[in-house]
Amino acid sequence: MPATATRAGARHRHPFDLQAYLTDRTAAVDRALDRFLPEATTRPATIHKAMRYSLFAGGKRMRPTLCLAAAEACSGWPDDSLPLACAVECIHTYSLIHDDLPAMDNDDYRRGKLTNHKVFGEGIAILAGDALLTQAFEIAAQCKGWPRYPHRHVLLEIAQAAGSLQLIAGQVADLEGEGKKISAEQLKYIHERKTSALICCSARLGGMSANCTAAQLKALTDFGYNVGLAFQIIDDILDITQSSEQLGKTAGKDTKAQKATYPAIVGLEKSRKIAQQLTDRAFDALKIFRGKAVALEALAMYLLQRDR
Amino acid sequence: MPATATRAGARHRHPFDLQAYLTDRTAAVDRALDRFLPEATTRPATIHKAMRYSLFAGGKRMRPTLCLAAAEACSGWPDDSLPLACAVECIHTYSLIHDDLPAMDNDDYRRGKLTNHKVFGEGIAILAGDALLTQAFEIAAQCKGWPRYPHRHVLLEIAQAAGSLQLIAGQVADLEGEGKKISAEQLKYIHERKTSALICCSARLGGMSANCTAAQLKALTDFGYNVGLAFQIIDDILDITQSSEQLGKTAGKDTKAQKATYPAIVGLEKSRKIAQQLTDRAFDALKIFRGKAVALEALAMYLLQRDR
Repeated sequence: MPATATRAGARHRHPFDLQAYLTDRTAAVDRALDRFLPEATTRPATIHKAMRYSLFAGGKRMRPTLCLAAAEACSGWPDDSLPLACAVECIHTYSLIHDDLPAMDNDDYRRGKLTNHKVFGEGIAILAGDALLTQAFEIAAQCKGWPRYPHRHVLLEIAQAAGSLQLIAGQVADLEGEGKKISAEQLKYIHERKTSALICCSARLGGMSANCTAAQLKALTDFGYNVGLAFQIIDDILDITQSSEQLGKTAGKDTKAQKATYPAIVGLEKSRKIAQQLTDRAFDALKIFRGKAVALEALAMYLLQRDR
Repeated sequence: MPATATRAGARHRHPFDLQAYLTDRTAAVDRALDRFLPEATTRPATIHKAMRYSLFAGGKRMRPTLCLAAAEACSGWPDDSLPLACAVECIHTYSLIHDDLPAMDNDDYRRGKLTNHKVFGEGIAILAGDALLTQAFEIAAQCKGWPRYPHRHVLLEIAQAAGSLQLIAGQVADLEGEGKKISAEQLKYIHERKTSALICCSARLGGMSANCTAAQLKALTDFGYNVGLAFQIIDDILDITQSSEQLGKTAGKDTKAQKATYPAIVGLEKSRKIAQQLTDRAFDALKIFRGKAVALEALAMYLLQRDR
């Protein structure tokens, strides 16, 4: 991780090897997802091939990794948080498959590969998304359940983050905002729901899987909310500053679709500054963990400084 | 209910007033759904209007009513089964919205009204389906939970019935079978998953909400499986014998889409006979309830004899 002169960076220059951590946790999530999903040959094979195609298309596993790291910050066992980490990744992947459809963002590429409907057709892509959303709840229902967070609590958490007031609300507002002049307030409404809600949920679920205290859950909520917003602003910035090749997906698509973005509304420099401030706030929220949240800190810095 | 000369009909000619029962239970389900769903004005209003448009489009509430009736057969309280009945109806409605999309069955009418995407556009229709599927789990997570059937058990039941091995598998096989010559075995595979799985799940959930015994659950499974298959065969028959006006949806669409149906494979008379046999089997399964399953019996007869 490059040294930075930022407030957060200055405070948190530690020898934590994020690359090794990401490699290890991503592999653990991949193995668990492979176990949880029906095999590609299971009848009807088309749907399981389509589900696996997008689920194993090289995603960064950011949400499940945040979930595992949050559990570790609360002294949880990674095995206990894996089902929830996988559930969140299934929801994230379903939302991408549906967002890429012609009736939505109409994207041909995602992570450098053809989008699901370009390979399997629109009908199967819609069903593969539906199946991954359903699979998320099937996987989550198999979690251990904890004294402070029984199954009903955990499943309600996921359903609410993915539902019509959060994740889906963000996508609806995003669709409806296309081509319109929208305010910074409206853009924040979209970002909070379309991106921050599920990232925040990932961190919270990690805490829950460690049977965390109410104060720890509050800290993870603040952390996830701010990291989530910062993540989307950086995404907006990369969309206009990077090439499609670097991103592995269509660059400049926000501009083309006349979507409002932070850079378009407040400018590039101000956007970078806001992302930095949000990351600082995310770091502040982690104080309660007294040095045990090193993975979460490193992840937040990495997400701020990434170039794709 | 008309008197019949059938085996099932002859054994079960009782004074049960099915029409009054359906009116009462449907109203209870409607009220509960209205309570569980965000209001139509809740931001973003479009998605909540779209969800409510299809959810309150005059559906027969067959699945939730079966759920309530199954609970009553096991001496359960209707209030305890209502969240699960509503969850099942949300899943049913989501599956109809997605099935009607141009990429699937491409239907303009459903229950005599324009389909969701004809009113709200494809993007919002996809999201309204997603939101109803998610809402189902949010509602189910709010059930009471029972000693024999804790929340994780109930939610797993719903996720599996709606997942890629059941409901979605049926839709995939149905899509893939269009225009192809398929066998009676393949058609049964489709019907079992596309229709019977969720109907069977509805009956089982009703039993679970009454903390039913293993033997009662087995009986409800047999009942639901057979009633579900009979229901779909009757649907196939009505598709070719009734007009669009009578059905409130496009008639003859199976033939037009070159879909395999029971009448097409085994003929109309044989199809009617199979539906009757399945209903007989459903009745046999109810013996264990010793006369307490009157509502389930009446529902099974009604579904066999309906003309739309």
